[in-house]
Amino acid sequence: MSQKKVVLAYSGGLDTSYCVVYLTKELGLEVHTVIVNSGGFSQEELAGIEKRAYEMGSKRHEVIDVTERFYQECLRYLLAGNILKNDTYPLSVSAERMFQSLALAEYARENKADYIAHGSTGAGNDQVRFDVAFSVISPDTEIITPIRDLGLSRQQEIEYLQQNGVEMSWEKAKYSINKGIWGTSVGGVETLTSRQGLPESAWPTQLSKTEPQEISITFEEGEPVALNGEAMNPVDLIVALNELAGQYAIGRDVHVGDTILGIKGRVGFEAPAPLILIKGHHLLEKHVLSRWQQLHKDYVANWYGTLLHEAQYLDPVMRDMEAFLESSQARVSGTVYVTLKPYQFELLGIESDFDMMQSKVATYGEENNAWDSRDAKGFIKIFSNQLRIHASFNDEN
Amino acid sequence: MSQKKVVLAYSGGLDTSYCVVYLTKELGLEVHTVIVNSGGFSQEELAGIEKRAYEMGSKRHEVIDVTERFYQECLRYLLAGNILKNDTYPLSVSAERMFQSLALAEYARENKADYIAHGSTGAGNDQVRFDVAFSVISPDTEIITPIRDLGLSRQQEIEYLQQNGVEMSWEKAKYSINKGIWGTSVGGVETLTSRQGLPESAWPTQLSKTEPQEISITFEEGEPVALNGEAMNPVDLIVALNELAGQYAIGRDVHVGDTILGIKGRVGFEAPAPLILIKGHHLLEKHVLSRWQQLHKDYVANWYGTLLHEAQYLDPVMRDMEAFLESSQARVSGTVYVTLKPYQFELLGIESDFDMMQSKVATYGEENNAWDSRDAKGFIKIFSNQLRIHASFNDEN
Amino acid sequence: MSQKKVVLAYSGGLDTSYCVVYLTKELGLEVHTVIVNSGGFSQEELAGIEKRAYEMGSKRHEVIDVTERFYQECLRYLLAGNILKNDTYPLSVSAERMFQSLALAEYARENKADYIAHGSTGAGNDQVRFDVAFSVISPDTEIITPIRDLGLSRQQEIEYLQQNGVEMSWEKAKYSINKGIWGTSVGGVETLTSRQGLPESAWPTQLSKTEPQEISITFEEGEPVALNGEAMNPVDLIVALNELAGQYAIGRDVHVGDTILGIKGRVGFEAPAPLILIKGHHLLEKHVLSRWQQLHKDYVANWYGTLLHEAQYLDPVMRDMEAFLESSQARVSGTVYVTLKPYQFELLGIESDFDMMQSKVATYGEENNAWDSRDAKGFIKIFSNQLRIHASFNDEN
Amino acid sequence: MSQKKVVLAYSGGLDTSYCVVYLTKELGLEVHTVIVNSGGFSQEELAGIEKRAYEMGSKRHEVIDVTERFYQECLRYLLAGNILKNDTYPLSVSAERMFQSLALAEYARENKADYIAHGSTGAGNDQVRFDVAFSVISPDTEIITPIRDLGLSRQQEIEYLQQNGVEMSWEKAKYSINKGIWGTSVGGVETLTSRQGLPESAWPTQLSKTEPQEISITFEEGEPVALNGEAMNPVDLIVALNELAGQYAIGRDVHVGDTILGIKGRVGFEAPAPLILIKGHHLLEKHVLSRWQQLHKDYVANWYGTLLHEAQYLDPVMRDMEAFLESSQARVSGTVYVTLKPYQFELLGIESDFDMMQSKVATYGEENNAWDSRDAKGFIKIFSNQLRIHASFNDEN
Repeated sequence: MSQKKVVLAYSGGLDTSYCVVYLTKELGLEVHTVIVNSGGFSQEELAGIEKRAYEMGSKRHEVIDVTERFYQECLRYLLAGNILKNDTYPLSVSAERMFQSLALAEYARENKADYIAHGSTGAGNDQVRFDVAFSVISPDTEIITPIRDLGLSRQQEIEYLQQNGVEMSWEKAKYSINKGIWGTSVGGVETLTSRQGLPESAWPTQLSKTEPQEISITFEEGEPVALNGEAMNPVDLIVALNELAGQYAIGRDVHVGDTILGIKGRVGFEAPAPLILIKGHHLLEKHVLSRWQQLHKDYVANWYGTLLHEAQYLDPVMRDMEAFLESSQARVSGTVYVTLKPYQFELLGIESDFDMMQSKVATYGEENNAWDSRDAKGFIKIFSNQLRIHASFNDEN
Repeated sequence: MSQKKVVLAYSGGLDTSYCVVYLTKELGLEVHTVIVNSGGFSQEELAGIEKRAYEMGSKRHEVIDVTERFYQECLRYLLAGNILKNDTYPLSVSAERMFQSLALAEYARENKADYIAHGSTGAGNDQVRFDVAFSVISPDTEIITPIRDLGLSRQQEIEYLQQNGVEMSWEKAKYSINKGIWGTSVGGVETLTSRQGLPESAWPTQLSKTEPQEISITFEEGEPVALNGEAMNPVDLIVALNELAGQYAIGRDVHVGDTILGIKGRVGFEAPAPLILIKGHHLLEKHVLSRWQQLHKDYVANWYGTLLHEAQYLDPVMRDMEAFLESSQARVSGTVYVTLKPYQFELLGIESDFDMMQSKVATYGEENNAWDSRDAKGFIKIFSNQLRIHASFNDEN
Repeated sequence: MSQKKVVLAYSGGLDTSYCVVYLTKELGLEVHTVIVNSGGFSQEELAGIEKRAYEMGSKRHEVIDVTERFYQECLRYLLAGNILKNDTYPLSVSAERMFQSLALAEYARENKADYIAHGSTGAGNDQVRFDVAFSVISPDTEIITPIRDLGLSRQQEIEYLQQNGVEMSWEKAKYSINKGIWGTSVGGVETLTSRQGLPESAWPTQLSKTEPQEISITFEEGEPVALNGEAMNPVDLIVALNELAGQYAIGRDVHVGDTILGIKGRVGFEAPAPLILIKGHHLLEKHVLSRWQQLHKDYVANWYGTLLHEAQYLDPVMRDMEAFLESSQARVSGTVYVTLKPYQFELLGIESDFDMMQSKVATYGEENNAWDSRDAKGFIKIFSNQLRIHASFNDEN
Repeated sequence: MSQKKVVLAYSGGLDTSYCVVYLTKELGLEVHTVIVNSGGFSQEELAGIEKRAYEMGSKRHEVIDVTERFYQECLRYLLAGNILKNDTYPLSVSAERMFQSLALAEYARENKADYIAHGSTGAGNDQVRFDVAFSVISPDTEIITPIRDLGLSRQQEIEYLQQNGVEMSWEKAKYSINKGIWGTSVGGVETLTSRQGLPESAWPTQLSKTEPQEISITFEEGEPVALNGEAMNPVDLIVALNELAGQYAIGRDVHVGDTILGIKGRVGFEAPAPLILIKGHHLLEKHVLSRWQQLHKDYVANWYGTLLHEAQYLDPVMRDMEAFLESSQARVSGTVYVTLKPYQFELLGIESDFDMMQSKVATYGEENNAWDSRDAKGFIKIFSNQLRIHASFNDEN
């Protein structure tokens, strides 16, 4: 009888390295390590992780790149919705982890794995994203979660690895960093308190440029398609803009939110491109969308972000919301002008063929020819009908 | 038969000065000029406006101060709701004009005025706020709007005043400024385009301090009650914080929005205290409100802001929303720490007796004792029931 | 110089007949009468109206049939959204009048009419629907509204017609009836009060069958495609079901609502097919949609109905909502069983390939194999985390 | 050392009778049985349950009546919100079970019970309501759930009781009935399918009166205070109306919904008073509330019902929503007229001092004096500004 096969979500860190050895030695499984890159890893980093995977005993190591898919099936909707969770957080890790989980689940199903494993603890959101994606996409593959189940300390894991011949130094970084195309999270020390902000030194990207510069971003039907007039595909544009605006240390903030498990948590993040793109896109929308579109888009987008954050990406309502968001972008085409400055950016203005502020029908300002005084008085009279009817029942009138 | 009496909303500017003379001379009315101060005028400015009112021929000039009422009946709800219209604008002028209109309407009713007049044109939102408040609060008082009806140019108004013995220089400011406790608006030149930002020189408050400083704001049931530990009533606190943060040129932005009349407009504003208070209050709420409170408060607050902006303050639904917002503030007590910097501020963190992130029941982080691995697995299994059921009907599963 | 041309929305009634003569004689226009049939008129009725149009002096009379378009571009979304305005009214007239207005406006534009006219008064919603559609679709065609502008009594209109050689009896019906495919409205006498219901005799369709019968309606992606197993196109199915269920006097009710002009109004309606289809469709959805789909669909649908009612069909947000609603119908396929009885119907149940109540993953009832006691306890523990954290700050705990 | 004490939610049925014996004999606990009456039990039934409790070995039996509290803290909000879950179900059992759970939890806390027990299985919603209420209100009292944990069949339970000297016949009813003041649920046989309706014989209340009668219900600030002009407290009125309308077999329907555990379920219910009160109250609201109140009240009410159903009654957002709902009822005073008929009722109309349809300011109908043709044209022109601006960018215009 052949050895059973487990697909393990592998990051190269202590927890998942422990899992490789544990699954091999204790459970007797053939371990296939998989890392899903959604834009956060360089080729160099991926090579290092692969090397380590084999050192730990992985039988086969796979890198699955989902960056383009992540953009097409998720990021463009986050942008269309101007989604900042709790008015702050671009859902950097939340969204990324979901797409990593989906890719893993599909890989396990296609490769007929007997088991699928991840290294999350039982404390946070990630386990939910993994378990949900795994059990929905590949319902017949059993989930194994050694870290969650065994509850070992770092020290215990290190000792176990040493006992199994893995001599490696596993320094615990002061801050836990998760790098992704839609933002890098920074957790630890101060973020475990409610009171302290993160010190300058904690941020992975440091200020390296102070001279302000004006840039332009061109959108077509809601998608960013050119930076400073140079056409790019959206993924490349995000990467380039992260690079450019990161020099100014733009897009740092701390997110305070509710986990899926009902407790509150706090995490720092830096997300230069997402913040600039979302705010710039939103400004463009204010010029080209109707008042009703903006009001109802907000409702849909808030829920889209909330449900994505809470591991509900596979609920069919998400497809319905995407249809709404996509439809709303028909005229979100134009160019946004932004000045980058240290730690901040300023939205200057927009140009768009659909700019409803520059319409031949009516113009904003002190004068207008679209209606006259008599029209305005008629409008206001009827506009206030119900208020006047309502007030007529008040005692004091 | 006695002369008929008109109550005129008087600002001291050219348009309303024209109205004083016009209403007196052309319509033969006894003009009572009224200025409603909602926190934007100094005593000196008010004295100057009073002097001019009498010069124009006002029979009686009144200053009505509604600042405290404006806070109690409006600003504290805007703060409770973290309300930034279109995610940007604290509704500075929108809210203020509504309360000026209400006070004028009540004054006219109480003083049994035959007419009530304002100097707005037919182009913008202000006429709606005036007309709605007047016709709802004082339905039997006829409204007169010379500027809207006659459509005169500035030059024509100036000539008319000269013909009536008013020799005064009426320079047109490059930018139209409206100063208020909840923000100062800046319109003109660039804001009439979609493309240009306002130049540094256009902002009424200039950067005068660059050394960062940490401040604290203490909230009690959602209301700001102390600045840097010093107890203050909320109105005084807003004034002091505007002063303090204004030195850093904090709180500048440009609002792009839909007028009540259906066209789009754009206006700059500086609102240091509102921005800091709203963002600080919001941060505190993230720690003390339940997930459901945050989700539904957003809905209520977005609509509260929208309806206030659109002159619907007197709709009874606003009272229902205020009841919701007030109830939601029961635990929004604590202190928020903020660092002021040139053109920006950083929220550091909070302290609160109701901080749900610091609970004895469960804590955020890698370890927790509130539930175990088995609980987490049971939770996720059932949490994903519907997704798994739904997916089981897919062809590919 | 050629005579100018006016397109008139013609119904054959007194008001629009007056308009034909008035526009011809007083304004010297060439009158083209147009009637738009959205399913409410028989061929015989249309022939009678055409005859009368020519008698009044119409130069050209057109019948435009928009029934299929009305279904495709509106009714199927009303059904997808289970839309009953104020939980009662299927928007029978509101929706129909909008589509008549659109067709008229397009006809006027295509035919380069100089003017476009309708016979609505200034009191109600219909003038808004006409004016909005006309001015948006055909902005350069001037609108003429004799009835609204002249404010004549019926008697004055009749006398004018007599003076112009039209000798015809124009009896005023006790009730004003508007017949349409999506419901027939009945207004007058009792509906002008708040207190009285309509008497049996006021209803156009009288009870003619009392023996209950079970019927079935089959839906495919949200659209009704078969009645009692017999495939039909949706429009034919609606007509057939109105006929069948009308015999039982099903679908009568009185709608109390807010007009676009801010006052409240009341109107009776009978809409057998719409009520049965909406309620049956809704039942099917309860079996095949996710909880989140149902919650958010309700939001979208309520607003879709409200905006349609208020003449906002041309707002682009309606297209966004239609995209949402269409997406939501992917699995709304199956058969609904209904018993027709006098004045009422009973929904028996449904059959669907996507019925999530009949899933192999988990089943409703006292026993289940999808999770065990331990799972349930873990689920509830974590599910109640936030409530327990929140309660831990209460004094009494 | 004294015997430890368990508070058991006791209904007199097989499951909870088994629990009494099991907790006493197997766990060695002192069992205190408690039944919470929220209006569903007669004195006779309560006496029978008490007798049985002592026969099973209860050391102390308590009846806690929460009917008045249930009305004050829940039902009046359900009525204020016109809440029918999924447009059908008045939340009869959902709401009742929550209040029974709360009373039990408070009893256990006040009586310093060591344990608290209920007889629910692991399959449905009730376990969630019990566990949530118990763990939030009385967090230090451990929960015991023998039925959920042991997974015994009815036969095994009966045999166990026999082995312990309980000789009693435990017939399984064909339908599981749960009687409450806000509705009686009926589950079994047909409701386990998706296809079948309940047969006439399954309904606890049978048609006993066929002659139609007109009744009136008077509301004061949203609460029902008189039936046919006779003042009653709301609880008595609900009881009387259930009695009166039950004779007509009014208020029967089948609810299809999503359980908290993610699966779908189906249950019949009869709720004559709730249905008549909700629909009558809603009609009154259509006359006295503003358009905006109705739109936003619907949002709040839908979520209030959903969260109540899903055991979130203790979330603080529920208090915020109650504040909104209570505020909205200020003018919901007046009398509703209803005709009762076999299996159905007809809402005739209303009378109210706040009826906005009968206002001196403006009246519905063909004529009105509140505005003229010119006002209407000005209104519609400006009302359609944005649509016209939007359309001006279309290619075809």
